[in-house]
Amino acid sequence: MFNFEFYNPTKILFGKGQIASIAKEVPADARVLLTAGGGSIKANGVYQQVIDALAGRTIIEFWGIEPNPEYATLMKAVELGRKEKIDLILAVGGGSVLDGSKFIAAAIPFDGEPWDILNKGAAVNTATPLASILTLPATGSESNTFAVISRRETGEKLAFGSVHVYPKFAVLDPETTFSLPPRQVANGVVDAFCHVCEQYMTFPADAHIQDRFAESILKTLIEVGPRTLANPTNYDDRATFVWSATLALNGLIGAGVPQDWATHMIGHELTALYNIDHARTLAVVMPHLFRVQSAQKEAKLLQYAERIWGVTSGAPAERIEAAIAKTEEFFESMGLPTRLAKYDNIQDGTPALVAEKLQSRGFAKLGEKGEVGPEQVVEILTRSLAA
Amino acid sequence: MFNFEFYNPTKILFGKGQIASIAKEVPADARVLLTAGGGSIKANGVYQQVIDALAGRTIIEFWGIEPNPEYATLMKAVELGRKEKIDLILAVGGGSVLDGSKFIAAAIPFDGEPWDILNKGAAVNTATPLASILTLPATGSESNTFAVISRRETGEKLAFGSVHVYPKFAVLDPETTFSLPPRQVANGVVDAFCHVCEQYMTFPADAHIQDRFAESILKTLIEVGPRTLANPTNYDDRATFVWSATLALNGLIGAGVPQDWATHMIGHELTALYNIDHARTLAVVMPHLFRVQSAQKEAKLLQYAERIWGVTSGAPAERIEAAIAKTEEFFESMGLPTRLAKYDNIQDGTPALVAEKLQSRGFAKLGEKGEVGPEQVVEILTRSLAA
Repeated sequence: MFNFEFYNPTKILFGKGQIASIAKEVPADARVLLTAGGGSIKANGVYQQVIDALAGRTIIEFWGIEPNPEYATLMKAVELGRKEKIDLILAVGGGSVLDGSKFIAAAIPFDGEPWDILNKGAAVNTATPLASILTLPATGSESNTFAVISRRETGEKLAFGSVHVYPKFAVLDPETTFSLPPRQVANGVVDAFCHVCEQYMTFPADAHIQDRFAESILKTLIEVGPRTLANPTNYDDRATFVWSATLALNGLIGAGVPQDWATHMIGHELTALYNIDHARTLAVVMPHLFRVQSAQKEAKLLQYAERIWGVTSGAPAERIEAAIAKTEEFFESMGLPTRLAKYDNIQDGTPALVAEKLQSRGFAKLGEKGEVGPEQVVEILTRSLAA
Repeated sequence: MFNFEFYNPTKILFGKGQIASIAKEVPADARVLLTAGGGSIKANGVYQQVIDALAGRTIIEFWGIEPNPEYATLMKAVELGRKEKIDLILAVGGGSVLDGSKFIAAAIPFDGEPWDILNKGAAVNTATPLASILTLPATGSESNTFAVISRRETGEKLAFGSVHVYPKFAVLDPETTFSLPPRQVANGVVDAFCHVCEQYMTFPADAHIQDRFAESILKTLIEVGPRTLANPTNYDDRATFVWSATLALNGLIGAGVPQDWATHMIGHELTALYNIDHARTLAVVMPHLFRVQSAQKEAKLLQYAERIWGVTSGAPAERIEAAIAKTEEFFESMGLPTRLAKYDNIQDGTPALVAEKLQSRGFAKLGEKGEVGPEQVVEILTRSLAA
């Protein structure tokens, strides 16, 4: 096991009716910047529950944080937050609203050009307090330090992380997710699954408990994912999915183990180029990355084959291919294509273009051992473009 | 899944040489009350590492916190802490030093008679900041809100809990545990195992991810427990055990599920009466409690039989008995007797005495459904007294 630091101070308020309990978390005289995306939180009643719970506080609303949140949009919220001297940002929505709000939280007190936080890795030494009401389970953003922000004019999708943007609290009421479009539920399940794989499918590090926790989440997502997609109002399955998605990326299973994240880096470029849903980029990259990196990941792929899919017979290469094929079947069963070829308008030369873009950003050696270079990126995407 | 609140702000500093990293956690001008038990931390070098890391701070030392920490001892530390106007309590040791230090932390600023915290459940509204260097993995106390304190003159062993006594940080360096006596390692493994069972062996609550996490810890303890007992200086096995013990009782696997804790309540009385090691009281109570409560716990016992021990054939009652027998074999293999009859000087009438003591403290209905009453306590202990 590697040395690690694990620190996650987000208070999770989980379950039916928990939005009301934010009344005890937010001071009565607080000035709250409520950040949101489109109008779905008005349609499903979440907005009204939040307003009711915050009765008496000053609420300043900022709407319009889009999927793959845009720097330009967020900077308007930064300006508003500074002008209104807010005490707390309350992000109400899914991962994009949350990621965007983390950037707003870091940028409000930032001295200098906030783009530097993303582009130059400028240190975030403080942040406006942030909290969240999560309405779309997937990203784990409600209980971690990370955010991914886009800048359309330059085709960039960049990440930052800071302990200062841990949400103070996060409300997860599974009932608020019942009305999500099936596509977003399916994306969420696959996103969470891939988050686990990024922290698991590397090389053995004698981290038995982390391995088993990771496998627990994978097995649970395979079990409840299709069920919660088919029966969106079954509370227990939805609750299990919601909590699994948080646990997939709250730092716990990644503590003390090697991590990959090459699939995410490649996927971000596909989203920036073609606006493909984040989870769908993972589904078209990850299985092929497993194949291309099967020698490096052999021991863990075999463990995954056995413990997750019950594949124990055949030569190692056959077991690995069987496990990858089952992974693809699972993604496809959730409605996510596992071939980039299934998307329209993919330009010729996309594999080389993505490899080049990653190189130009200084990401020429991805993966747990830096062995996913331009050549491997091209091979992964070329395979995914094959029918 | 039940509604829950999960909040655990303890920063875990895990791994080789991590004691040195407390230098960045403790302000340079801090007045630190270092609390400890006997001299083992001097013998194994931990004390010197702590002193080196805290160079420049004012350190006030309080030694002599005993196993099953005594109220009278702790009150001396409270007095010292108040007089010295300390900023931080740094508990260096195992669960007893930590539990005792939690009480010291709560008692220093407490307005009134601190015994009321234990005896009357008086509210703990604040506490002196606390942190820990853990040298004995077992109790999970390094990353939770609980403490158990004894008072010899009245034969009491009472618990309290407060979010204010969460350690700010906890150092877990597995190497500092290499020199532990085998008995303490064995006790720690069984203690952690039983902590998981108290949160798992109840009734199904559609909490699939919590179940699998609990099972992950159980399987891992069964795997590494005997190995780390046999080879105490194997780093990876010891590290896995240490991290498993923390995860067994940091609130995570108990979030959103029913909990039992009857075994602990009965066990505390045995320790108070006969000074039997805490873990050993759990080993002599838990298997018999499973038998006596096998109807109430049937579904989870069958799940446990299958997932932990691979027992899938036979009638339900046979599978349950096989799983309980395997649990006993595991405890015995670690050197812990599973029969109270194996201990000397157990007075006649002990089962009734324990039942009476629990009743007199207001604990007449224990367990996840309050179905472990005096009659069941007598039956459990009578079985454990049978050869």
